Amino acid sequence: MNRNKTRVIELKNRPCVLSSASAVGTNEATGPLGNYFDIKYSDDGIGEQTWEKAESRLLKDALMCAIEKSSVTIDELDMIFAGDLLNQCTSGSYAVRNMNIAFGGLFGACSTMAYSLALSALLVDGGYCNYIAAATSSHFCSAEKQFRYPLEYGCQRSPSSQRTVTGAGAFIIGNNKKPDIAVSKVLFGKVVDLGVTDTANMGAAMAPAAAESISEFLSSTNTLPEDYDLILTGDLGMVGSSLMRDIIKEQTDTDISPVHNDCGLMIYDMDAKGINSGGSGCGCSACVTASYIMSKMKTGDIKKVLFAATGALMSPTLSLQGESIPGICHIVEFIKCGG
Amino acid sequence: MNRNKTRVIELKNRPCVLSSASAVGTNEATGPLGNYFDIKYSDDGIGEQTWEKAESRLLKDALMCAIEKSSVTIDELDMIFAGDLLNQCTSGSYAVRNMNIAFGGLFGACSTMAYSLALSALLVDGGYCNYIAAATSSHFCSAEKQFRYPLEYGCQRSPSSQRTVTGAGAFIIGNNKKPDIAVSKVLFGKVVDLGVTDTANMGAAMAPAAAESISEFLSSTNTLPEDYDLILTGDLGMVGSSLMRDIIKEQTDTDISPVHNDCGLMIYDMDAKGINSGGSGCGCSACVTASYIMSKMKTGDIKKVLFAATGALMSPTLSLQGESIPGICHIVEFIKCGG
Repeated sequence: MNRNKTRVIELKNRPCVLSSASAVGTNEATGPLGNYFDIKYSDDGIGEQTWEKAESRLLKDALMCAIEKSSVTIDELDMIFAGDLLNQCTSGSYAVRNMNIAFGGLFGACSTMAYSLALSALLVDGGYCNYIAAATSSHFCSAEKQFRYPLEYGCQRSPSSQRTVTGAGAFIIGNNKKPDIAVSKVLFGKVVDLGVTDTANMGAAMAPAAAESISEFLSSTNTLPEDYDLILTGDLGMVGSSLMRDIIKEQTDTDISPVHNDCGLMIYDMDAKGINSGGSGCGCSACVTASYIMSKMKTGDIKKVLFAATGALMSPTLSLQGESIPGICHIVEFIKCGG
Repeated sequence: MNRNKTRVIELKNRPCVLSSASAVGTNEATGPLGNYFDIKYSDDGIGEQTWEKAESRLLKDALMCAIEKSSVTIDELDMIFAGDLLNQCTSGSYAVRNMNIAFGGLFGACSTMAYSLALSALLVDGGYCNYIAAATSSHFCSAEKQFRYPLEYGCQRSPSSQRTVTGAGAFIIGNNKKPDIAVSKVLFGKVVDLGVTDTANMGAAMAPAAAESISEFLSSTNTLPEDYDLILTGDLGMVGSSLMRDIIKEQTDTDISPVHNDCGLMIYDMDAKGINSGGSGCGCSACVTASYIMSKMKTGDIKKVLFAATGALMSPTLSLQGESIPGICHIVEFIKCGG
């Protein structure tokens, strides 16, 4: 390993993606990436009695599917890093309860997929663990209930609001002498808060953190946007993506538009009703990355991806107390090694 | 590094405790360990307008005090790992907001001090970071409000209930060629749930996880209780401590009583009104370890400590849905090297 002056950490031993899997609800299954998801439910209740249990089930299903797709047995797994949007991160902890595997609970809101991947890759790179699972989830109904209004209220949502993805993604990270897709660098983000207080505009709350982490990654690795096939943000949506690109352009005179895309803009038909500014939630970047992106890297269509997952660390309690919404953005660089 | 067959991870490069600090409220300051705490407030509101902001302030104060006590400047710090009991872990993220340091949010409930120490020690041991801060907090008033009843209600608390500590602890972990106190081994716990549903008996919910992690640590390192000066659990309190010792005795015929103590039994005068089964909360093990334990290790009174922080991953939402309470216990082994 080698540490730059700034916070980009280079992984010398090429911890790699042994497998990845996704599980999604109805709106996601019928969206533009529908064909790429592993598990698709025809009912967002997923056979459970509550939305919280349905979300936990999504996470468990994605996790078990990723384990099955890898060459690793569940007994060989050293650890699971997981987190989600629910209070006390219950989707993760209830999913792995009594599973007999060490568990690390994370909170990074919608940045959790990149955050859990980064920690997993570091512990594998350092030789501390052989195989680690990284997983995260979100559910439209549990998120609306907890963060906004009861579903039954039928609240009108603002154009800048995003739809929380009902979905989960999981990766198995391990060592492989002939890696196909490796995690080559990681950057842990800072908590950035420029004072956005509008809880219906998470994209704007996260954009400054995304701009900060992406700019720092490019400058400290001395790379340009064109050095990547894709700079993929988590769930900035339409409003946040445009803001983030503008901030980077203004502050560093760099235009990332030609290689930028956002998971929140990819997962739904943006013209569909109720989508507004795009998708969001931990599950958004998780299931897009674990399915579509890994699939495109496997075929070699894209070979170098900066996965910059964004999180709005929004608390309804603190928002009601007049506080603004801090954002964070953790980055993982995936490279195609060729196997 | 070397990994045992089980999950105990040995740290070969002796990442060490460069400093530690604690900040506490009135009940803790006047308790038996009062003299050991760095910052003591005469009012639990800590000059803030809400309990949540007061808790975040405690965490920030402990963190800044730990930085000041170390030889590390804030600019040299590579990362902060923090977590707490509040929804969306706001104490941590609001404390470090705009601090310009990478942040990793954790959720391990009351096990967070050992969990954050373990991750910090691993990233320093692997050479990925030079200096990391690990911090956590809890506040009686914000916890009661979120998890139980409004304070104004004046609810009668059951004898098995524990008092959430108003306090925070922080450690700076780094490399030092002549370490005084080092983190020598870590173990990440599993999520264990034996079906306890009584939200006024967190000790019972956590005891099985503590027994599992401690037994596993002893067996996989081939050590006996007498090999340690202290096996310190986080916050099992009176009920949980006794249960945990019984489970270990029954399952492995090992009596840890001669070297066992629990932070929840140490921080308050156990005969005082309202203490019931003892202290709890992320801040409980954090401020006892960061103050009293580190002080006793510095003087050499104790030289080898198994710090087994325990967490009840309790969610009011899932409890109301009839779910039982999962527990977890992460372990960090501290050794006195002599400086």
